[in-house]
Amino acid sequence: MNPLKKSKASVGEIGEFPLIDRIRKILPVSGNRDLIVDIGDDTAVIRMDERRALLVTCDIQVEGRHFRFDQTTPYDLGRRAMAVNLSDIASMGGKPTYALVSLGLPASFPVADCDRLFEGMRDALLPYRAFIVGGNLARTRDCLIVDITMLGEADLSRVLTRGGARVGDRIYVTGTLGASGAGFQALKVFGKKVPRKYGDLVRRHVLPTPRVELGRRIARSGIPTAMIDLSDGVAGDLYHVCTRSKVGAEIHEALLPLPNHIGEIAERSGRSVLDLALHSGEDYELLFTAPPDVPARKLRSLPGASGVPITEIGRIVGRNDGYCLVDARGNRAALTPAGWDHFRAARDFRGGRRR
Amino acid sequence: MNPLKKSKASVGEIGEFPLIDRIRKILPVSGNRDLIVDIGDDTAVIRMDERRALLVTCDIQVEGRHFRFDQTTPYDLGRRAMAVNLSDIASMGGKPTYALVSLGLPASFPVADCDRLFEGMRDALLPYRAFIVGGNLARTRDCLIVDITMLGEADLSRVLTRGGARVGDRIYVTGTLGASGAGFQALKVFGKKVPRKYGDLVRRHVLPTPRVELGRRIARSGIPTAMIDLSDGVAGDLYHVCTRSKVGAEIHEALLPLPNHIGEIAERSGRSVLDLALHSGEDYELLFTAPPDVPARKLRSLPGASGVPITEIGRIVGRNDGYCLVDARGNRAALTPAGWDHFRAARDFRGGRRR
Repeated sequence: MNPLKKSKASVGEIGEFPLIDRIRKILPVSGNRDLIVDIGDDTAVIRMDERRALLVTCDIQVEGRHFRFDQTTPYDLGRRAMAVNLSDIASMGGKPTYALVSLGLPASFPVADCDRLFEGMRDALLPYRAFIVGGNLARTRDCLIVDITMLGEADLSRVLTRGGARVGDRIYVTGTLGASGAGFQALKVFGKKVPRKYGDLVRRHVLPTPRVELGRRIARSGIPTAMIDLSDGVAGDLYHVCTRSKVGAEIHEALLPLPNHIGEIAERSGRSVLDLALHSGEDYELLFTAPPDVPARKLRSLPGASGVPITEIGRIVGRNDGYCLVDARGNRAALTPAGWDHFRAARDFRGGRRR
Repeated sequence: MNPLKKSKASVGEIGEFPLIDRIRKILPVSGNRDLIVDIGDDTAVIRMDERRALLVTCDIQVEGRHFRFDQTTPYDLGRRAMAVNLSDIASMGGKPTYALVSLGLPASFPVADCDRLFEGMRDALLPYRAFIVGGNLARTRDCLIVDITMLGEADLSRVLTRGGARVGDRIYVTGTLGASGAGFQALKVFGKKVPRKYGDLVRRHVLPTPRVELGRRIARSGIPTAMIDLSDGVAGDLYHVCTRSKVGAEIHEALLPLPNHIGEIAERSGRSVLDLALHSGEDYELLFTAPPDVPARKLRSLPGASGVPITEIGRIVGRNDGYCLVDARGNRAALTPAGWDHFRAARDFRGGRRR
């Protein structure tokens, strides 16, 4: 009944994505017609009625792994943890509605910090009129664990998954790439004395802005064929789109939208700009694909009042045409899809980030 | 804006329920008419349309706190963790539909154990045609964390909360009380050599049966005014009903439905039978209240094919008439509402259980 070979490995040895593949094989195919999208996208998508889809996603963050209290405050942590989930809803073109919060807390955790944590989560939801409606508390030995489940709603006909990209589609991203990674490096290099000019980068790291309104505008435009949010770095996240859509991709180095000062931070931290932009992750921008014949005027109108730029960075190619980066001279190199793996150690080319 | 006094205490010092009260004060009142029930019941209840309600609940379990691998297997843990959530859906009279699973895993956790864990969770859902549709993995330093979010559906007109009990209502429970606690004590006393006659008690502890079908039958009968599942012990859970319903209660010692052999286990473990039945928790039976004029015939028909007994154990009284236990001679004693507190140490009268 179980097609899996018995494994003698540890989860750290096989790594996150093979483990997820394994879990998918254990779980039965539901055969439930209301389940539009299950494991393997940013959120699960469930048909509510003829018109509406329910979105559900969760994200667990562990102290010492995803955050450290010497680098963030309980309030910022609360906002950020919620923002990460809001970004998943945004990537489906959805509207966030309700959240549940599971906390694992050591007994020594200060009540005042717990207050601030919830204030941060509350404030992250306020702009969307979304609310925390439930949760659960448990005691842990020594570290804080924040697990948030977020519900959202979307037009059933406009839900955007990772699986719809087609050969010839163009690839677009919102905002800039690498700002969060550069902000993290700035914190590492300068500690608490980060020069003011790098403040934007640090803010993009500490408090990323989920592109909720923009995601809805993009979805409603009917333009995109696929969408994902950029949590693992564009090289890793675009690879997810390619895998689910059964296509390849090429992105052009010269087209990548870079934040100001990223070159200086790259130099100070000994990383390359390209590495920060492609692999550093946690930008929580959106990446989407769209057919090549979409009128430029339509694309230009997408950002609306947000002012967030939308930039074409490459195109979808056939599965056998690979997954690659084209440099300014037209040279093609295989693009390393690696994003963050929650079990293996951070890989070197990611710049040795510790989470 | 924030009405809370700044606290200098730790979460362990103030305890779970005061902490939840504090969190509720931080969170805004939603003013959202679709949110029928929010924090403070077994599940949140959200209006989906004129007819249907969406139920959402989550439960986080921490290794060393809620389970230990010398007392359970990964497969049983998976089934049990899911059963706890199914029981919350049952307590609202709902039908479980979808689950999300967040896991925190140490890198050394065996892949084979992770497989078994998911097989257990899958198998717990199969009878209800409910499915795992998403989740999230993170690495922890040294302990397994399982956080499950469960979605369910209920008839909007039949959703049962903790808040509807009225003075004069009778109090009913399904099954027996104290079986899980007695099973836990049997494991403690006999280790792996538990005599066969106590097997039922041990099974009730290791693999509780959530009363999903029965909960739906009870809700659909239209009889109950309030319902809750028994996770913290009847003394603690009935107190939640009383608090939310703004009433008191008296329960009759002689009416408590006790499992076979509980007396022997109580004697061997140095606990009283009454303590096991009232306080030991984790029975995952249902408690509901119903008006006194419900025909006995209607009540008798509730268990249907399940064969699970339903027993009247007391009645709802006015708020000022207290919360008490009446013994066989008619003597009244204050009933201690204490159930499990996830932050304070287990209290003595709970029998010194360690979780």
